[in-house]
Amino acid sequence: MTETMDAPRAPGRPRSIRADEAILESAIDLLAEGSTIEALSIEAIATRAGVGKATIYRRWPGKEALLHDALRRLKPPPPEPPGQSVREDLIALVGMSGHNPDPRVSKIMPCLMPMMNRSPEQYRLYQELVEPRRRMLREVLRRGVELGELRDDLDPELTVALLTAPLLMQRLLRAQPDLDERDLPARIVDAVIAGIAAR
Amino acid sequence: MTETMDAPRAPGRPRSIRADEAILESAIDLLAEGSTIEALSIEAIATRAGVGKATIYRRWPGKEALLHDALRRLKPPPPEPPGQSVREDLIALVGMSGHNPDPRVSKIMPCLMPMMNRSPEQYRLYQELVEPRRRMLREVLRRGVELGELRDDLDPELTVALLTAPLLMQRLLRAQPDLDERDLPARIVDAVIAGIAAR
Repeated sequence: MTETMDAPRAPGRPRSIRADEAILESAIDLLAEGSTIEALSIEAIATRAGVGKATIYRRWPGKEALLHDALRRLKPPPPEPPGQSVREDLIALVGMSGHNPDPRVSKIMPCLMPMMNRSPEQYRLYQELVEPRRRMLREVLRRGVELGELRDDLDPELTVALLTAPLLMQRLLRAQPDLDERDLPARIVDAVIAGIAAR
Repeated sequence: MTETMDAPRAPGRPRSIRADEAILESAIDLLAEGSTIEALSIEAIATRAGVGKATIYRRWPGKEALLHDALRRLKPPPPEPPGQSVREDLIALVGMSGHNPDPRVSKIMPCLMPMMNRSPEQYRLYQELVEPRRRMLREVLRRGVELGELRDDLDPELTVALLTAPLLMQRLLRAQPDLDERDLPARIVDAVIAGIAAR
């Protein structure tokens, strides 16, 4: 396999892009199969990818950098919200939680979360993965305030937590067995916008 | 140690209550030190507690039952809310998240959460731990509706998710580095009650 991957290539093609892909995919597979980040070794990734360890070390300085690229591949930044109404954009952004089409994401993310606290590197890695969506949510909230649809004294960071945490807990951990999951993103957004106080 | 624990006791005292405590505490210690539930063995618990494995098996049929008692000991059901205003009772109940005085709780709970999905037993164990507070929250919400303070069309289960998920994500995982944590329970409750729509 290494043979093919490091074989002469057509001009203009980056060298051994297939080896890169095989290595990143192997790391993702191993995490999805239950390996912890701590237990994951360059050796195991190399074996799974059918390459030598040296092939990996030519591309990444170590496990941290490799995992960074693997997780970016698994969970690319979300697309910009559709730019409809504030409510619809919030629903689109909230609905992305735990809804990645790759089934490996829902296996890996719950394991990644508790690891966040074990090292500053892992915490940064997780934050880099989730920050793009938070930034978009804050922008939609700011637009809502500018349009006069949302309160101008809202706390953007707290609002982002209210919008995102319930769906994360539910989709990743099924935290509440009795929570109706139909249209959950829209119901969360509507509840956060309107509040529960009697009118 | 076993000697003392299994020694003759004063009438009316349960036999070897100190052995029970030592065993449960040892299981909690091992989890807090980073053992996964899967990796935790009766043998390791026995060694840590200074008892024989037989001493454990005389008290519990297996690891599952032992862990159930250990986690109940670590995280007893919350006290009833003070019975003040709906808002104050919600703040008291929300504020309990991840705020157990035992520092081992914040080490164990994030590890327990991803394990919930691995087996129905672990899922039930977690649900038993968290259900008492959820029940109290639903009762306070019902009181708020009856008093005319809260909307009568609120979804209790969704509201419980909005009230509890943000603080859990923050206290257990520090999910949002920029979220101001001062008075967070009160700010969550106020945001959920009032909503973010402009008035």
